[in-house]
Amino acid sequence: MTGLSSLTTAQLEALEAELARDFELQRANRVKLDLTRGKPAADQLALSDPMETVLDGSFLAADGTDARNYGGLRGLPEARALGAELLDVDPARVICWGNSSLTLMHLVVDTAMRFGLWGDERRWNRHDRPKLLAPVPGYDRHFSLSASLGVELVNVPMTDHGPDMQAVLNLVRGDGSIKGIWCVPKFSNPTGCVYSDDVVRALAQLPKQAAADDFVVLWDNAYTAHDFDFPGIDLLPIMPEADREQTADHVVSFASTSKITYAGAGIGFVAATEAVLRVLEGRMGYFSIGPDKVNQLRHAKFLAGRLDAHMAQHAALIKPKFEAVEAALREGLAELGVADWTTPRGGYFVSLDTRPGLATEVARLAAAAGLSLTPPGATFPYGKDPDDRNLRIAPTFATLDDVKVAMKILVLCVKLASLRGEISTRKESAAP
Amino acid sequence: MTGLSSLTTAQLEALEAELARDFELQRANRVKLDLTRGKPAADQLALSDPMETVLDGSFLAADGTDARNYGGLRGLPEARALGAELLDVDPARVICWGNSSLTLMHLVVDTAMRFGLWGDERRWNRHDRPKLLAPVPGYDRHFSLSASLGVELVNVPMTDHGPDMQAVLNLVRGDGSIKGIWCVPKFSNPTGCVYSDDVVRALAQLPKQAAADDFVVLWDNAYTAHDFDFPGIDLLPIMPEADREQTADHVVSFASTSKITYAGAGIGFVAATEAVLRVLEGRMGYFSIGPDKVNQLRHAKFLAGRLDAHMAQHAALIKPKFEAVEAALREGLAELGVADWTTPRGGYFVSLDTRPGLATEVARLAAAAGLSLTPPGATFPYGKDPDDRNLRIAPTFATLDDVKVAMKILVLCVKLASLRGEISTRKESAAP
Repeated sequence: MTGLSSLTTAQLEALEAELARDFELQRANRVKLDLTRGKPAADQLALSDPMETVLDGSFLAADGTDARNYGGLRGLPEARALGAELLDVDPARVICWGNSSLTLMHLVVDTAMRFGLWGDERRWNRHDRPKLLAPVPGYDRHFSLSASLGVELVNVPMTDHGPDMQAVLNLVRGDGSIKGIWCVPKFSNPTGCVYSDDVVRALAQLPKQAAADDFVVLWDNAYTAHDFDFPGIDLLPIMPEADREQTADHVVSFASTSKITYAGAGIGFVAATEAVLRVLEGRMGYFSIGPDKVNQLRHAKFLAGRLDAHMAQHAALIKPKFEAVEAALREGLAELGVADWTTPRGGYFVSLDTRPGLATEVARLAAAAGLSLTPPGATFPYGKDPDDRNLRIAPTFATLDDVKVAMKILVLCVKLASLRGEISTRKESAAP
Repeated sequence: MTGLSSLTTAQLEALEAELARDFELQRANRVKLDLTRGKPAADQLALSDPMETVLDGSFLAADGTDARNYGGLRGLPEARALGAELLDVDPARVICWGNSSLTLMHLVVDTAMRFGLWGDERRWNRHDRPKLLAPVPGYDRHFSLSASLGVELVNVPMTDHGPDMQAVLNLVRGDGSIKGIWCVPKFSNPTGCVYSDDVVRALAQLPKQAAADDFVVLWDNAYTAHDFDFPGIDLLPIMPEADREQTADHVVSFASTSKITYAGAGIGFVAATEAVLRVLEGRMGYFSIGPDKVNQLRHAKFLAGRLDAHMAQHAALIKPKFEAVEAALREGLAELGVADWTTPRGGYFVSLDTRPGLATEVARLAAAAGLSLTPPGATFPYGKDPDDRNLRIAPTFATLDDVKVAMKILVLCVKLASLRGEISTRKESAAP
């Protein structure tokens, strides 16, 4: 690997001039590309079109419930079983409700804040400034949801195996205002890392070690089934660990079928112990007579016994896009050593770290060349990346050809910004 | 009309003995009947079964949106148009989201309490004890929803034409803690009354007259399409009146298709001015990426241009049940003059008022004879009917034959309780 720093300033300037020309040519192409959207492409959605006719006029659930009528806040048994399969828990610990795990996360955080999750006196809002730990980079909607309910976010570093548990421990041990931690344990958004067994075990112990007696591990297992290769990677299930540690009342898990069937027209799951489910059901009873059980029945019938087979069909469509991202980054950036990136084995994102201070400039250049990137900072609470270096790449929605063109532009922008940064640093340090 | 009071005590006692024998015979039949559930029967649900295949593999909305993918918090244009038809408002003033108007009511009350509905400083919870007016008898879920969010309920009397507006005015003019009023303007739950034009106009003016500057008319138009005869009864649309009075920012309307298509697997609507919709959309953005647009598209395609025809099919199934209720009450109770009841021309309920103090006893007798009634008091805030006289009859879910048997039991119980009440009153007043 040559590396940028081994080049002379003259070499750097020649390379910069060449790349600037490439950039102008690219800009003249007037493309309009987008790597911002973590959403499935139409060919992925079409994999679930047979679901529309799977009921074939029969609306009775396994327990005899007419799915077309009111009631059943916890959802149909077969839908809860599907959630249990996704979340690796007992079906009795699952509520299937709504079309979105985000809505259920909002319910859990709101309930923890105002009403308490355990039917006792504990409420997060009894503390002046309740906080949640945010492993960064992370999922922007976790952050905005929390902040919208008055919960502050505290950054903790993310490693390739999950949150830096020593940093986490240091924070939660001494500070009772820290009420929980957001986790995307498999194919984390955006780095794509999978939490190691050690990290899962450490997280299961965490509620016992936290100063707060109402600490909650928020386990957003959004990509649990979203491997690129099958059989998939095994994430250590957290609930048996938490049962063993007697912390199970302090672990709440989430999943949905949004990126399995239809995004938005799927079904959402929350899993917790009976004590917590009872409290959540109590709250739901004030604003819901029951979820859309017809859609639950569709999903259960469509996916029962063939979840992996279905997800393998998704993988066949999106893995090539991730391979194109990896190839472009490796071929374009590895030699110069100007960026780090992740190579996930599933999920929806690649995380790219530029040299510090350059992410905003890269996004600005990309936009000028017709490529939209997720706004730098979006992967950090309050939109603030302290090092201004993280970019999230979401290649699923674009076509493979568009991903290739987009990545060519992105690589060009990273190189150009890095070269210019290096040149200006050298000039500054050479100045009298 | 003979009337109970014109009978001698001996006649009363003879009649009581006869009815007590009938009651014991009825009890020996060991029936198990239920008039508690305001839900559609299976034959009504089946009317919408063709909806399941109406999409026929095409998921594109009129505006080109792929209904299977994320996004579009306000819902599909054709679904919003359906809500606009139900709520008699401009489609631009409709958000179609979720499967339940109750969830949207919860969002509106919660937003009004904590975040404000107008993007300014006004919040209901700035007042120590914010309150909503509850025309009684009314809908129990309005009451429990409000109370669960910390809003108190204040009873106001219901007339045959809507809330007693003089009583309402007297309350809201002098008390800034009264923040709004719950309304079910057409086929009100449970009396079945339709608000008169005068009442609608008075309600549209109300936010100007209220002491609170954040007063809201909560317009739950749940039964707007649920006439027994067609063309249906015209409710005066409130929004044009509110526009004229410049109070439109203080009227929020709700509807759903729960009792039009599938109960629970329908779609929900909230209608308001753009200022309020923008605030609601802002809140929704924290917990939702968008509603189930596939279900919205199903509904729009299934109901477009044939809403009345579809509701007439419902009417053909449920009108005979309401006629059976009316016939049983008239034949059994009119002569004795021991109860008042409503004869709605649509909706889901009949409201029955016994003599004061007897509703609990009637429900107790009915339960002993195998008939479940909605718990007395349920139609009042905090479950407390100050006169213990109101009973809600919900005849849709039972079969017609069961409704007839159930009403025979109910009539018997009302007569028995009334006779015993009259006898004991006479004995008390005759006592030295």
